[in-house]
Amino acid sequence: MTNSLKPCVLITGFAPFGGENINPSWQAVQALEGLNIDGFTIQTKELPCEFDTSIHALQGAINKYSPHVVLCIGQAGGRADISIERIAINVNDARIADNANNQPIDTPVVPAGPAAYFTNLPIKRILLALHQSDIPASISNTAGTYVCNHIMYGLMHEIALHHQNVKGGFVHIPYLPSQAVHHNGAPSMSQQTVESALKVIITAAISNKSDLKVAAGTTH
Amino acid sequence: MTNSLKPCVLITGFAPFGGENINPSWQAVQALEGLNIDGFTIQTKELPCEFDTSIHALQGAINKYSPHVVLCIGQAGGRADISIERIAINVNDARIADNANNQPIDTPVVPAGPAAYFTNLPIKRILLALHQSDIPASISNTAGTYVCNHIMYGLMHEIALHHQNVKGGFVHIPYLPSQAVHHNGAPSMSQQTVESALKVIITAAISNKSDLKVAAGTTH
Amino acid sequence: MTNSLKPCVLITGFAPFGGENINPSWQAVQALEGLNIDGFTIQTKELPCEFDTSIHALQGAINKYSPHVVLCIGQAGGRADISIERIAINVNDARIADNANNQPIDTPVVPAGPAAYFTNLPIKRILLALHQSDIPASISNTAGTYVCNHIMYGLMHEIALHHQNVKGGFVHIPYLPSQAVHHNGAPSMSQQTVESALKVIITAAISNKSDLKVAAGTTH
Amino acid sequence: MTNSLKPCVLITGFAPFGGENINPSWQAVQALEGLNIDGFTIQTKELPCEFDTSIHALQGAINKYSPHVVLCIGQAGGRADISIERIAINVNDARIADNANNQPIDTPVVPAGPAAYFTNLPIKRILLALHQSDIPASISNTAGTYVCNHIMYGLMHEIALHHQNVKGGFVHIPYLPSQAVHHNGAPSMSQQTVESALKVIITAAISNKSDLKVAAGTTH
Repeated sequence: MTNSLKPCVLITGFAPFGGENINPSWQAVQALEGLNIDGFTIQTKELPCEFDTSIHALQGAINKYSPHVVLCIGQAGGRADISIERIAINVNDARIADNANNQPIDTPVVPAGPAAYFTNLPIKRILLALHQSDIPASISNTAGTYVCNHIMYGLMHEIALHHQNVKGGFVHIPYLPSQAVHHNGAPSMSQQTVESALKVIITAAISNKSDLKVAAGTTH
Repeated sequence: MTNSLKPCVLITGFAPFGGENINPSWQAVQALEGLNIDGFTIQTKELPCEFDTSIHALQGAINKYSPHVVLCIGQAGGRADISIERIAINVNDARIADNANNQPIDTPVVPAGPAAYFTNLPIKRILLALHQSDIPASISNTAGTYVCNHIMYGLMHEIALHHQNVKGGFVHIPYLPSQAVHHNGAPSMSQQTVESALKVIITAAISNKSDLKVAAGTTH
Repeated sequence: MTNSLKPCVLITGFAPFGGENINPSWQAVQALEGLNIDGFTIQTKELPCEFDTSIHALQGAINKYSPHVVLCIGQAGGRADISIERIAINVNDARIADNANNQPIDTPVVPAGPAAYFTNLPIKRILLALHQSDIPASISNTAGTYVCNHIMYGLMHEIALHHQNVKGGFVHIPYLPSQAVHHNGAPSMSQQTVESALKVIITAAISNKSDLKVAAGTTH
Repeated sequence: MTNSLKPCVLITGFAPFGGENINPSWQAVQALEGLNIDGFTIQTKELPCEFDTSIHALQGAINKYSPHVVLCIGQAGGRADISIERIAINVNDARIADNANNQPIDTPVVPAGPAAYFTNLPIKRILLALHQSDIPASISNTAGTYVCNHIMYGLMHEIALHHQNVKGGFVHIPYLPSQAVHHNGAPSMSQQTVESALKVIITAAISNKSDLKVAAGTTH
């Protein structure tokens, strides 16, 4: 393994879904391919927006790159800021079919897996770093019940079983302006801002500092 | 134990918090005290809006009444409909101090407890029953990180350890109209509608039927 | 004219539109038919949700009843509170066709009419009366560009030309709970609360007191 | 008059207000100073966020530059897209004091002025041009009752009385990302996107083409 010689971050985006032509997560992620951030090489991967298949693709990329940090990014159409997911839950409940035409309802991501996994990224440190960079961001306590939550659960399960030194997490991003044009009144974020956000997140994630204790919860 | 002779449902509301004079959950819950629904007696309890103390009070009430079903209700100011919580997570992250002036940040509800507990109520069956009764309702995948999530986690942990035949869950309700007057533009629900909703929920919860497989998830 | 012998208030609701089976405005308005409020008889009228035809129907009802006050009510699906309209503008811009399949775009309500009419109701007095009755309410500065704005403009134009002693205005109300069930997450208001609101509004409107100077504007 | 020799567009932004350190309107507007767009020189002016004083400053700039088009820009914190105002109304109703500590309530912008003025810009043409440029935008039927509506009314009144060949209008823009950081969950738009939007709007405004008939109204 040459992993220790060339430390890397694996960052993933998703294929378009739900009638969109693009997915802002992959638009921003692919722009980071090959970058060097604080000595870490950025490796990227586009995941299919499909239950199960997406997890297999992610596992393949983890095995290929042996990353220190894995960051999965997904579109949250309607959210206004960068939202850093705190937890993934062991359920699939698809409001719409995925790109392979599967629509699981109330099935587990991993049969007999735990009810949920917390991210092991320093989410409060990431939050403050984004704010200090003038980028709107918040902590989210639900990644939904679709493929985004599914991949985050699959990632944290993989880390728990096979890669306990790896840091992993999930970040939701808004529509791009070009998408919001077709979603009357929906908020958006420019790709440039999203790319800046991803660099800030990666820098904080690889800093290897413990998380901060700052309140960022919700009353409901 | 005389429990089997007089089956009961324990339903709880919270004390006011966050500067409110009333809590719509206790306003609606106390109106159900002593009712008989399908042979079940309704027992009610007001819980303090305090971390830890609320769980002790709930445990006391469970031991006192030996209920078949425990339903905890809480205020979700800003939400527009009855929201049936799917899951509670093992974290306290208080945006504001509780009524005992405690503000835990990123502490566990139960040290070494599992990351989360799913409700064991038939939430999709409850959802459809509410809709058939013309009451707006949805499934929620986060109860927040304040006392509401805290009590739901505490309840499901108590059930998991000591009362595995008991059904338990949590439901968030909107502001009352009298509260929304002071929260510019916030949605509200009349107490009469909330009381009707609680009766529908209790009826579905005690029916002892398995849950339905209908999609009610979110993409994020 | 026997008008002075039997003072009356004319209050109108609309027929359902946009795929709804009911219109909450007419549901609430018809429940007031024949009531006596502070010596005023309440007369009601259901208006068609159609451009032009609705104004003719309103003119007919005004001529029939010779009301002191005319209050038109309409559905604002998605709004959370009682919204008291300040102004009607001289434009039709229909996002969807009306019930007679007309969809005027950027046409005037009244050719050569003024750009807008303010209501002559004491809207701030009405607002405070609603708040004092624990009913969520706000001042709105746009009634849209569909049939609701159209009828308000038509009403105020009729008053300006032919009935200058009549008070007139328009109030938007939320979905009923039974409608919100079909509009995922939309706020609603119970018919009982809406009926209470209408009585409060009528009482304030016939009080013949001047309006209050309280801030209720918006920065945008 | 040398106006015809050097045709120009006057575009204004506002000073910060309401506790903000910057106003995104002036941030974007000043970046356009001196540009040449299709033969028109762009002149810019920062207006004070004050009732009356702002109108005097605008009149001064109009007299100085003799512009063919006057475009006033303002911040609409909480709105998610570029919103093109259709109409200004003859009322001041200030929820907060202006920068000179004046808080007029229900006073006219211009005593004895008409109830409202429509913009004479081709707003539907502008809307489509923005959408074709992948910029989220919508038509707004209210500019509020604060200084933004005030200046738009003042502008259109000035045009009606003294500059009937001038085109004028008002556009609201969202918070910048750096502002939204301090407004939990509020949508934002990057300055780069706003600047692009302003150029598209100016190009459409000076094209001297008649407006398009496309539906862009609201039902309420």
